[in-house]
Amino acid sequence: MTIAPALDRVDLDVLGHEMHALIAELYPICRSITGNGFRETLNRLQRFIPVTMHEVPSGTQVFDWTVPLEWNIRDAYVKNSRGERVIDFQKSNLHVLNYSVPVHQKMRLEELRPHLFTLPDHPDWIPYRTTYYQRNWGFCLSHRQFLDLPEEEYEICIDSSLENGHLTYGEIYLPGDTADEILISAHTCHPSLANDNLSGVAITCSLARYISQLPRRYSYRFLFIPGTIGAITWLCLNESVVPRIKHGLVLAGVGDAGALSYKKTRRGNTEIDQAAAHVLRHTGAESQILEFSPYGYDERQYCSPGFNLAVGRLSRTPHGTFPEYHTSADDLSFVSPHALSKSFSTCVSIFSILERNRTYLNTNPKCEPQLGERGLYRMMGGSTDNKTSEMAMLWVLNLSDGNYSLLEIAERAQLSFDSIFDAATALKQHGLLKDATMTPSSEATEKRA
Amino acid sequence: MTIAPALDRVDLDVLGHEMHALIAELYPICRSITGNGFRETLNRLQRFIPVTMHEVPSGTQVFDWTVPLEWNIRDAYVKNSRGERVIDFQKSNLHVLNYSVPVHQKMRLEELRPHLFTLPDHPDWIPYRTTYYQRNWGFCLSHRQFLDLPEEEYEICIDSSLENGHLTYGEIYLPGDTADEILISAHTCHPSLANDNLSGVAITCSLARYISQLPRRYSYRFLFIPGTIGAITWLCLNESVVPRIKHGLVLAGVGDAGALSYKKTRRGNTEIDQAAAHVLRHTGAESQILEFSPYGYDERQYCSPGFNLAVGRLSRTPHGTFPEYHTSADDLSFVSPHALSKSFSTCVSIFSILERNRTYLNTNPKCEPQLGERGLYRMMGGSTDNKTSEMAMLWVLNLSDGNYSLLEIAERAQLSFDSIFDAATALKQHGLLKDATMTPSSEATEKRA
Amino acid sequence: MTIAPALDRVDLDVLGHEMHALIAELYPICRSITGNGFRETLNRLQRFIPVTMHEVPSGTQVFDWTVPLEWNIRDAYVKNSRGERVIDFQKSNLHVLNYSVPVHQKMRLEELRPHLFTLPDHPDWIPYRTTYYQRNWGFCLSHRQFLDLPEEEYEICIDSSLENGHLTYGEIYLPGDTADEILISAHTCHPSLANDNLSGVAITCSLARYISQLPRRYSYRFLFIPGTIGAITWLCLNESVVPRIKHGLVLAGVGDAGALSYKKTRRGNTEIDQAAAHVLRHTGAESQILEFSPYGYDERQYCSPGFNLAVGRLSRTPHGTFPEYHTSADDLSFVSPHALSKSFSTCVSIFSILERNRTYLNTNPKCEPQLGERGLYRMMGGSTDNKTSEMAMLWVLNLSDGNYSLLEIAERAQLSFDSIFDAATALKQHGLLKDATMTPSSEATEKRA
Repeated sequence: MTIAPALDRVDLDVLGHEMHALIAELYPICRSITGNGFRETLNRLQRFIPVTMHEVPSGTQVFDWTVPLEWNIRDAYVKNSRGERVIDFQKSNLHVLNYSVPVHQKMRLEELRPHLFTLPDHPDWIPYRTTYYQRNWGFCLSHRQFLDLPEEEYEICIDSSLENGHLTYGEIYLPGDTADEILISAHTCHPSLANDNLSGVAITCSLARYISQLPRRYSYRFLFIPGTIGAITWLCLNESVVPRIKHGLVLAGVGDAGALSYKKTRRGNTEIDQAAAHVLRHTGAESQILEFSPYGYDERQYCSPGFNLAVGRLSRTPHGTFPEYHTSADDLSFVSPHALSKSFSTCVSIFSILERNRTYLNTNPKCEPQLGERGLYRMMGGSTDNKTSEMAMLWVLNLSDGNYSLLEIAERAQLSFDSIFDAATALKQHGLLKDATMTPSSEATEKRA
Repeated sequence: MTIAPALDRVDLDVLGHEMHALIAELYPICRSITGNGFRETLNRLQRFIPVTMHEVPSGTQVFDWTVPLEWNIRDAYVKNSRGERVIDFQKSNLHVLNYSVPVHQKMRLEELRPHLFTLPDHPDWIPYRTTYYQRNWGFCLSHRQFLDLPEEEYEICIDSSLENGHLTYGEIYLPGDTADEILISAHTCHPSLANDNLSGVAITCSLARYISQLPRRYSYRFLFIPGTIGAITWLCLNESVVPRIKHGLVLAGVGDAGALSYKKTRRGNTEIDQAAAHVLRHTGAESQILEFSPYGYDERQYCSPGFNLAVGRLSRTPHGTFPEYHTSADDLSFVSPHALSKSFSTCVSIFSILERNRTYLNTNPKCEPQLGERGLYRMMGGSTDNKTSEMAMLWVLNLSDGNYSLLEIAERAQLSFDSIFDAATALKQHGLLKDATMTPSSEATEKRA
Repeated sequence: MTIAPALDRVDLDVLGHEMHALIAELYPICRSITGNGFRETLNRLQRFIPVTMHEVPSGTQVFDWTVPLEWNIRDAYVKNSRGERVIDFQKSNLHVLNYSVPVHQKMRLEELRPHLFTLPDHPDWIPYRTTYYQRNWGFCLSHRQFLDLPEEEYEICIDSSLENGHLTYGEIYLPGDTADEILISAHTCHPSLANDNLSGVAITCSLARYISQLPRRYSYRFLFIPGTIGAITWLCLNESVVPRIKHGLVLAGVGDAGALSYKKTRRGNTEIDQAAAHVLRHTGAESQILEFSPYGYDERQYCSPGFNLAVGRLSRTPHGTFPEYHTSADDLSFVSPHALSKSFSTCVSIFSILERNRTYLNTNPKCEPQLGERGLYRMMGGSTDNKTSEMAMLWVLNLSDGNYSLLEIAERAQLSFDSIFDAATALKQHGLLKDATMTPSSEATEKRA
């Protein structure tokens, strides 16, 4: 019950800068969907919160997929005829087509050209490209540099390995009063890209640390996973946990300057959809609600028809709609402490509603109870100053027939969840509300704490 | 079946003036939620229609409430040092804080001031204030007069009594062909306020007199009750009657110059909601439909979750949204005969739809019946003059499959209820419609008349 | 499966001119709801496709109606005192009030006048009028000619017969892979009117010929019937067939220059409603969707509550909303080859969706299947070019849980049905989709082919 109020004790400005510093620290690491860069990233997070590292062997069958060989890279370059590194992995890990097989040979530009990737529309930016599921190698470079490459012989070298190993992911589980879970998932597999998705990694880490210190009704599970294959792997290895996931949020691209956007779950009107819409509507700033689509981040897997989980996604500018997406321009200057802290507090507000949302029964359903006698109502009749708190009490009493949660009452009343929650708390203290009978599904997962 | 057509025999202009005259007659009486002013008001109504007076003893427990002590007042004043009545109950009963305990003493202005109530924003108006559930006393006066009060000693006197007695309410029950009831409820507890709610009292009285003279399908129950406590008391003492109430209307603030407004029931799409929306849409004048909220008049009690009755509210300018509300400016000039008669005829139109609304079965559901042969259709083919009556017949035949009432057919056809009803009447006369099977609930209350 | 693709093999321009030529050939024939004109019309259609002619005896009871006496006409005129034919059936069969009883006598203009019908608003046009169900006779003429008729004695002659005979209608049944039927119905009873409904007759004939040459999932039934009485007769004599009709289309007024309009079925959201709306939305041209109303063409009978079939109507400018409707101005110049061929291809597009629309189950519902490995997805990650075909595959996989047909997936995805169908075809070929369990109703009518 204390998740949102505790925000008052957090200096969001400081937190924003801490998160930005964490992103800066993780930014140079060459991550991929497997390998040491991923492990190193999780190790750095341990400073803030204990993260359980899971290692899943290459070749493990996960639904329709197979955990791939582990990829590691030490160095890569293209040297010109004078032995100068004209493309250098040490300067930016984006220069290498991610998951490139090892290669070391000399070739003319014409032979090299099919292995070079550029962005003609943004001639100064390096694109980010991957080749996870097709053996290939290549380099990414700015189009301007590409045009300047003379026709000569080059030495190309990718000192990588693609071998049996493991897929690594990190997990934090914070038990709550009930076994019902809220899932927070951030893909952590991108190399030097700040918004996509070190912003999500940093906020997920901060949320875990923050929530770990507070009492909570729900259990929380935080996942740092490689995109797609990581979500598939986790779902496959944790099918027994899935029924406990009542709500979830994918965090991706939450550090840029754009307005917050919430993408609905496949079901489209779940409690987290209602809560996120409520929070964004009351945030004061511009924001948007996006319909579900099966394209995007790992909500694709969580919302696949066989799971159909109530997992939405919080982002700022949606992926693919800003030019910096998947380029070297998604750098440390593209994300700001302010945007990060605002995304963080938005998540907290959403979870805070889920924590406090209940369905009550009015214990005095026939006519209104006498609120004035209980000190809950103005004593002087005839006045026209209808305070919000009185309206909130009337709404809670009127709609608490077991069919409306507090959040749904807030929506119908067009009042803030907080005012409705405060009214319900006061009414409950006076015995005017009782818990509606629990649903069998939530009863089943109730803990013996 | 004859409630609406009978309107043609009413001179609405004369009726409007009669209702205004009744308001003028009742206006000076000092009413409250109990006491002789309430009784006197009911006595005056007897001139038009027999009203049963019910007396409920103080102390009676009604749900969460207790019937209060009976309040009566004979005189009240504040005299200045020269013995002049500077505030005088005889000039306006609004001057006394309604339900003030008796008091008689001298005091300085500074001591008196906490007991004085004014409206700084409307310095010439006297506010209306009550203290039903807190023992207190006070005076209401214009802000201008308040500012002029010199600092001196005043004699204050409220010659009231607050003693064991009764809560009084009036009831008219008009049995119809069935025991299913339409409830019309008007709060009658306000002293010298014309729109709120002598307008409702006058129209309710006129409706009762009007309907009493006509055959009717529904039984009608008219309540003249003190606000809140009266509705609670009636509901508590008449719980066995409640299941018979199929539709209801609270009438309050129906005499001012504002547009008619209908406030929906808690359920939001009941038959009376449909009927009222239909009437207002076809009235030609501006009007508005308001969503339900648990704030307002006695619909709060009728629509509490334990009853959840199909009771809406007809008003003109909604309470609390006009400055004259609960002030001395809600006087006889604030209500007009024209507005009163238009509100009256709107009620009649709504009841007339409820009276005539039926669900039929097309007895010839496969293809259209041959209307022309029965004289129901134009005989000359090929012409393009589609008359409304023919369209209405086609709609009634097409949708009379047991799933659509005539009102719902009118809505889907975007035709007036009257044209649909006339079409149904003609079709029924030719055996092309029969009553859809009655629902068990309405069967159960069917009378043996 | 090949109904739409086969359109590529059709020269729509040639087909449009063929249909216009057929209309021109049928135009002079004096049709009515019975008689030799109707038979002659069906005979002409035999050149394109075998049409079964049904003859229903006069006096046959069909639901609430009786098959009327058969009407035939050989000649009709009004001669002036000089023996000149001033109104001559041989010049236009519209001159005779359709179904006029025989008459031959002399009379003054004043006696004749009640039998003359004109259009004062369009003084050069001859109106089309009928008197099927009332014994009468009359002449239709231009208002200009009417005004010029001198006051003298006229010889009027209608050489018609109204005798026991038959109602004639034509039927084409094309069996498909299943017994489930698509019904196409065109009223064929109007004399020299080109748009209403020789356009519908010509397109229905072309559709039957076109579909007869192609494999098909559905069985198709084409009706050339007299309006109203023909639909009633067919429904009455074929009640056992009715449950097999899954979708249907009335074709009427489909040759004029106006935008295409689809009128919904009574149920309002059937598969053909979805399909027609989808086709019109993606047609590129202006179009409109009309709500159902019980007025119009034979959809009135198919959508009567006792049948409530999923039969919509395709028209261009809706009947009764263009001045040429039911006048001599609805002539050969009022319909164009281009409009006819576009209406034809629109019908084909609708049927093509119905033919291909299926509901599938994702065989790999937990997480996404690995499309790339199957060659169904781009191999290079990180790129932002989201091709429609990939999105279509993701949508089909995500929503194929048995609750969404391909058409419904296309609508939710806001993609064309064709792209969704192509995606489903590819996925099915790779074993990623299987048929959802058939509904009992469609199973029951499944053929043993």
